[in-house]
Amino acid sequence: MPKLEICLSPELIQLYELKGKNVVVVDILRATSCMVTAFAYGIKNIIPVAKVEECKVLQAQGMLAAAERDGAKVAGFDLDNSPYSYMHDFIKGSTIAVTTTNGTQAIVKSKQADQIIIGAFLNISTVAAHLLASKKDVIIVCAGWKGNFNLEDTLFAGALAYQLKSTFETTQDSTIMALAMYESNQSDLLAFVNQSQHVRRLANLDIHKDIAFCLQCDVYNSLPVFSLDRLVAGN
Amino acid sequence: MPKLEICLSPELIQLYELKGKNVVVVDILRATSCMVTAFAYGIKNIIPVAKVEECKVLQAQGMLAAAERDGAKVAGFDLDNSPYSYMHDFIKGSTIAVTTTNGTQAIVKSKQADQIIIGAFLNISTVAAHLLASKKDVIIVCAGWKGNFNLEDTLFAGALAYQLKSTFETTQDSTIMALAMYESNQSDLLAFVNQSQHVRRLANLDIHKDIAFCLQCDVYNSLPVFSLDRLVAGN
Repeated sequence: MPKLEICLSPELIQLYELKGKNVVVVDILRATSCMVTAFAYGIKNIIPVAKVEECKVLQAQGMLAAAERDGAKVAGFDLDNSPYSYMHDFIKGSTIAVTTTNGTQAIVKSKQADQIIIGAFLNISTVAAHLLASKKDVIIVCAGWKGNFNLEDTLFAGALAYQLKSTFETTQDSTIMALAMYESNQSDLLAFVNQSQHVRRLANLDIHKDIAFCLQCDVYNSLPVFSLDRLVAGN
Repeated sequence: MPKLEICLSPELIQLYELKGKNVVVVDILRATSCMVTAFAYGIKNIIPVAKVEECKVLQAQGMLAAAERDGAKVAGFDLDNSPYSYMHDFIKGSTIAVTTTNGTQAIVKSKQADQIIIGAFLNISTVAAHLLASKKDVIIVCAGWKGNFNLEDTLFAGALAYQLKSTFETTQDSTIMALAMYESNQSDLLAFVNQSQHVRRLANLDIHKDIAFCLQCDVYNSLPVFSLDRLVAGN
């Protein structure tokens, strides 16, 4: 039986052996929700970079670029960190450079994995089906907030573990915790996430429409995966 | 209102500002449960050290010494990592050097705190009363298992937060999670902890009697606190 483990923060990633495994990176609010949306709208590539400066260099070379820090768009960039930014025709066939506070850092730290898959509630069943077909051990890497544990990414990890628990071993303590969190709150994910530090922190940035959108399951069947230096469509 | 935060693993401690705060270190199975028991039996000092070799040096100088690695007593030491080891008359007035896989490491990493307090279910209300009287911000540091999140220390953190939540701000995501974990399982802590990796890992070491003992609330009113290089009675 393959194993499913949950890494609660990128700061704990050194405790996990990533080689030979599928890693699912999740940053529900909002990096991976944006990526899943962008691929649903036909984007060709997303290049995740760790630093705002790298993102600026790619923009200067003519690429579309999106940079977020502390929940807000960085001045001078083309797109912000809302899934609604990606619901446009100009996305189709384009390549976009992206840097975010947490999500892109988690991708960069997961590069030793066999495959990195981008997960969100928006594509959760597509991710689960892919992992079931692959049969490899899985590590879900929660992007968290600046290294800290967060509720929304852990809730997603629990939801994904819930879909996989009859086929994967899910006996690690963090998985037991995340499964229980999901099972207690599955009837109203939004009410649960509304308690979170993230939502309170960003209340003044008027992102409630985004949050409600990001907590919907299976809106899209896109499957972004990391290949060489960029995200591409995995299905 | 003072703040209460929960650090889920010593590997995340660099994300917290410890200066000026009370830190509660918890390693339910079994380091801090042993320490609380030892002070209830009149021990004078416990010297926590990070390495087995340091512990051996202190033993060679004539001190009693206890060393645990991977849940088992290290050969050649006087005491093991069971609270029952400390329920003896010879404990009274003695000084013991101790090293454990997780608990003593968490103490060593918390030295920047204003005060380090040793917490366990065995003395939980005594710890809560001390924190209430002190009114300083609190960080509960879960010792975890080799850097990983664990259920039993998080459950204790939730139980302590539950006792303090009307007086302390408990809105950090890890605190919300731990509070919910405790509230869902408070009627049967033992059944919950029996699912944990720790219990499964140590099943062959016959520690079920210890585990049941360590999950009892308020057996003792001892309050070990760290002073200079050692634990002393704080009340």
